[in-house]
Amino acid sequence: MKIALFTAGGDCPGLNAVIRGVVLKGDRIYDHEFVGVRDGFRGLVEDDIVPLPRQRVRGLSKVGGTILGTSRVSPFDHGGTARVKEVMDKHQIDALIAIGGEGTLTVARMFHEDGINIVGVPKTIDNDLSATDRTFGFDTAVSVATESIDRLRTTGEAHSRCMVVEVMGRHAGWIALHSGIASGAHAILIPEVPVSQEQVCEWVQHAMDRGRAPMVVVAEGFRFEGADQVDKGRTDGFGRPLLGGIGEQVTRIIEGRTGIEARNTTLGHLQRGGVPSADDRVLATRFGTAAVDAVSNRMWGTMVALRGVDIVNVNLQDATRTLKSVTRALWDEAAILFG
Amino acid sequence: MKIALFTAGGDCPGLNAVIRGVVLKGDRIYDHEFVGVRDGFRGLVEDDIVPLPRQRVRGLSKVGGTILGTSRVSPFDHGGTARVKEVMDKHQIDALIAIGGEGTLTVARMFHEDGINIVGVPKTIDNDLSATDRTFGFDTAVSVATESIDRLRTTGEAHSRCMVVEVMGRHAGWIALHSGIASGAHAILIPEVPVSQEQVCEWVQHAMDRGRAPMVVVAEGFRFEGADQVDKGRTDGFGRPLLGGIGEQVTRIIEGRTGIEARNTTLGHLQRGGVPSADDRVLATRFGTAAVDAVSNRMWGTMVALRGVDIVNVNLQDATRTLKSVTRALWDEAAILFG
Amino acid sequence: MKIALFTAGGDCPGLNAVIRGVVLKGDRIYDHEFVGVRDGFRGLVEDDIVPLPRQRVRGLSKVGGTILGTSRVSPFDHGGTARVKEVMDKHQIDALIAIGGEGTLTVARMFHEDGINIVGVPKTIDNDLSATDRTFGFDTAVSVATESIDRLRTTGEAHSRCMVVEVMGRHAGWIALHSGIASGAHAILIPEVPVSQEQVCEWVQHAMDRGRAPMVVVAEGFRFEGADQVDKGRTDGFGRPLLGGIGEQVTRIIEGRTGIEARNTTLGHLQRGGVPSADDRVLATRFGTAAVDAVSNRMWGTMVALRGVDIVNVNLQDATRTLKSVTRALWDEAAILFG
Amino acid sequence: MKIALFTAGGDCPGLNAVIRGVVLKGDRIYDHEFVGVRDGFRGLVEDDIVPLPRQRVRGLSKVGGTILGTSRVSPFDHGGTARVKEVMDKHQIDALIAIGGEGTLTVARMFHEDGINIVGVPKTIDNDLSATDRTFGFDTAVSVATESIDRLRTTGEAHSRCMVVEVMGRHAGWIALHSGIASGAHAILIPEVPVSQEQVCEWVQHAMDRGRAPMVVVAEGFRFEGADQVDKGRTDGFGRPLLGGIGEQVTRIIEGRTGIEARNTTLGHLQRGGVPSADDRVLATRFGTAAVDAVSNRMWGTMVALRGVDIVNVNLQDATRTLKSVTRALWDEAAILFG
Repeated sequence: MKIALFTAGGDCPGLNAVIRGVVLKGDRIYDHEFVGVRDGFRGLVEDDIVPLPRQRVRGLSKVGGTILGTSRVSPFDHGGTARVKEVMDKHQIDALIAIGGEGTLTVARMFHEDGINIVGVPKTIDNDLSATDRTFGFDTAVSVATESIDRLRTTGEAHSRCMVVEVMGRHAGWIALHSGIASGAHAILIPEVPVSQEQVCEWVQHAMDRGRAPMVVVAEGFRFEGADQVDKGRTDGFGRPLLGGIGEQVTRIIEGRTGIEARNTTLGHLQRGGVPSADDRVLATRFGTAAVDAVSNRMWGTMVALRGVDIVNVNLQDATRTLKSVTRALWDEAAILFG
Repeated sequence: MKIALFTAGGDCPGLNAVIRGVVLKGDRIYDHEFVGVRDGFRGLVEDDIVPLPRQRVRGLSKVGGTILGTSRVSPFDHGGTARVKEVMDKHQIDALIAIGGEGTLTVARMFHEDGINIVGVPKTIDNDLSATDRTFGFDTAVSVATESIDRLRTTGEAHSRCMVVEVMGRHAGWIALHSGIASGAHAILIPEVPVSQEQVCEWVQHAMDRGRAPMVVVAEGFRFEGADQVDKGRTDGFGRPLLGGIGEQVTRIIEGRTGIEARNTTLGHLQRGGVPSADDRVLATRFGTAAVDAVSNRMWGTMVALRGVDIVNVNLQDATRTLKSVTRALWDEAAILFG
Repeated sequence: MKIALFTAGGDCPGLNAVIRGVVLKGDRIYDHEFVGVRDGFRGLVEDDIVPLPRQRVRGLSKVGGTILGTSRVSPFDHGGTARVKEVMDKHQIDALIAIGGEGTLTVARMFHEDGINIVGVPKTIDNDLSATDRTFGFDTAVSVATESIDRLRTTGEAHSRCMVVEVMGRHAGWIALHSGIASGAHAILIPEVPVSQEQVCEWVQHAMDRGRAPMVVVAEGFRFEGADQVDKGRTDGFGRPLLGGIGEQVTRIIEGRTGIEARNTTLGHLQRGGVPSADDRVLATRFGTAAVDAVSNRMWGTMVALRGVDIVNVNLQDATRTLKSVTRALWDEAAILFG
Repeated sequence: MKIALFTAGGDCPGLNAVIRGVVLKGDRIYDHEFVGVRDGFRGLVEDDIVPLPRQRVRGLSKVGGTILGTSRVSPFDHGGTARVKEVMDKHQIDALIAIGGEGTLTVARMFHEDGINIVGVPKTIDNDLSATDRTFGFDTAVSVATESIDRLRTTGEAHSRCMVVEVMGRHAGWIALHSGIASGAHAILIPEVPVSQEQVCEWVQHAMDRGRAPMVVVAEGFRFEGADQVDKGRTDGFGRPLLGGIGEQVTRIIEGRTGIEARNTTLGHLQRGGVPSADDRVLATRFGTAAVDAVSNRMWGTMVALRGVDIVNVNLQDATRTLKSVTRALWDEAAILFG
């Protein structure tokens, strides 16, 4: 078979390890031929397709980013399925492997329903896909966040300051939860659990009273109890709020209400770049080799997933239905250690 | 309740995070009192017991080693259950939490059968306990091994040498398998799968022929096909073989048979020391808080374990029965990428 | 002698290694007694002084922050030299060791002129003291910045974005220069060398044209050619500009002028926290042991400094006179690699 | 000019950053043309020479090893200067840039005396060249060693064991000295200062008595007072002693004389592989750009060097005359902290 791979949506440590896994196993076991689509759906509709021989994936398991590039272009603004089929026919491509998040996998499902041979590999640094126990990239993000919080703690203690760290997680608080537990944070604020300003300040004050420098980890999607879902302040020319992110807001509220000096650090893109953790490389490699098996077995419309310690195949339909949120019970368990 | 904690057997990143989790939740939720037993079973039979107040566990989640110390002393050489009961009575200790590997958990099971209130927390850096999907310490060990292999690869390539890395794993090859996959090794040699000298040299030669510097990861318990289970060579005064470990042997065999220059590095204790990975800290913390729940619910004779994404309780009897080995299927899957 | 130590100003990796070096050598070689002043000059005027026995500094060389705490309190607002002498007399303190930056060392010089026995240890994460070839903390800050830029590069390349990184350096661009060279940045913007918006955009565009994801490193004190020394925009309640730092401004200007998507990351406190680099620990330890020699030799009014590979003593008067800036020649040399 | 570059001797983090610095500045400022010689002198006598265009050095500053390869082949066994001139003439090469250690620079000096246009860049991971304050690679080696010792310390403390770490340094103890100071070792053993077995055991016992897990750092070239310069034991088929390295010997002697359990770790190639430290990248880049200046200025027979904070040019004759050893005074200063 001739198979085209692409990566779409935000990048994530481990994408290259998936690509390497697909191509190496596909070449050695199945004798497939591979091509790479550049910049996700953009390359698919603009016919920007390059050869992807075995040598091209050499040494890739530890390389961050994606050698294929990625973008957030939607194929439906540029000819949709018809155009994709046209490009596939031109290159005599038998099947697609789509590596992407919820949006990408939803498009993949629609392609499948329109008769395109496609298999998915789930990708979300936020770990919020319900169909898989874990996704690659998440472990790296949590590691980077945890190392950063460890660093910030010592400077907080030297100055008796409250340190606030804003981590990724617009809809789900997994990165905040895990990095907060790992680093012994005094408060973990996530989108799933609105908390009052009073409560946050109480935790901060309590840690201060015990002689600690308070450490607050906040996911970018967190909102205070009673706050609007999205803070509608003045925005700059690019639509970004002038007031800064939620980390900055939490910092000001803590300073304002408790009088404790506070500082915000927004980790941002640091969490998605760089060398993937060993665990992410293993998971991504396993996803890659399992995806090429799925293609070889013509399991169209499915994606690979982790269940316990096993890799399984699930229908794209089931895969994209619900967001995996942090449960209240899990957060409550973590909250025992707050303050 | 008054609860005594101890850590026994080889140390492992995450032990202190377990201790912290136990004490913080026990103090806040259940109002238990805690004492620490020094150096595992030694402290239990020699009555070497220290207070373990909440302040003592502050900041411990990221600290390697164990603040309680550990040893490989067996209680049955020093009075056994009777002596342990005596010490517990003297200090009015209601229950024990034993953090240890297969040997420790087997003793814990025997204590339980003799009427001691005890709960276990599994610990094995080798990840070879069948009752739990994963154990803390393993992720750190794999991370350290993977980073080391990444380092060794560049020097191997500069000199066109074969680099051999000996990692931990006397009975199970999990560390070798994961670090080998993560780093793109050209051969992974584990106790579960004996391989011939010819086969190893073929992989090495094949990688060399493709212009790569061959990278071989070998678990300390690996034996070549046909070799005695333990190589009975001359030993030094401490019972250690003069010929060096299996990594050294593999290195010499590769040099001797292929003529390719080869170098061995034995990672040894580097894999079990230092700051635990974020993932290990989270798992260890969850094990700790679950263990104190189990004690509070008087679930004597059980241990905590990971199943999928959940923490569960299993009987110590079931927990220590079988070793979790790398299956042939998993190794075959990895072997596709060799050579 | 009875010697009091304090750390003042912003914290910096290596402070604890200095403290350890002072106390260990002072205890073993000179039999001095040590006390610690808490939170810099605050503790000195408020008589907040604690014993500092040998055991207290155990294991400190690798610990970030400062066990003595620090603050930006000025002694001259709280009784000045007279009050300091009073506190010293009360505790029978013979001499002070002041670990701090330009401000602290200037106060130390004034104390010396007023007859207080004092010796200084220079501390500036920005490396901008002219009297010493290097200061501890700088190497750690450069390492953290470089690792961060390495991470950001892969995500920039995946999305073909320009990544902007704001690093520390209000008056001197050493951190930007070194981390920018180390990471192969396409532009390095420092306070010493104003550059036009056109020039920055030209470098960015040039890198883009050659297929790279442009990487711009900007020190917080950089201003565009022709811009006011300090951008006087609207400020929030804490006096911080609503428009964000210079990194954010550079990002918007690049996006606005070139149309290339750009993202800013402000490293902030990450650069001053956490485990010091090996090199900083060595320098800090050497500074500490040399400082206690200076005290023992009654070299009042001096501070320790690095010259080539040697530790020397310089007068505090000479030490605080001029800022060590990045020379135009050094920046020009780096600029050869831009774009 | 057409310039050929090569790297010779053992590899070292930073070699690629030198190559990149040379080519980028040479291309942009001087419009030189570059070729690379493969595997050091081997490629020079065997005419194994490849183009080295600007694109080839892209992104190299952070890549360990050397893209040109290296070897320990001597040109004088393969035609010497005459053969080298022949190859240079064939390719119309105007000048050579030799990146290497003492041996390589000595050959470079002889080439120069024979009329070959050559400029040197010093490389020694051991930091033992007297003509330069520091060499790249050293900082990375010290960092890796220090991180490793930090890791080993926690496992040593958990088991109350003495940990011995063997680091590089056959003739000079710089890596041992710096990593030992940085990590707070209880004994640092270097080739320059023979120490008795009694003394080492006394330090170990003293640390143990104070409740510490003794940490001993030993350079591979250390010999006990009174021992033969090289221990002439039985050797294996490859000339390596059956008894293991000096780290293993120190470990056994400590165990034998004190009864304290001890474990050895030999870091070996870990110290020379992998991503260079930020500081090494900066120094290597500066060496590279200075070397191409030297070529352009026809400063034949010189090499670049670091003096204080400046890059200077020194005669190859002066450069290779004496080894830079750790002075007794420096070691005595460190020894204050032992035990």
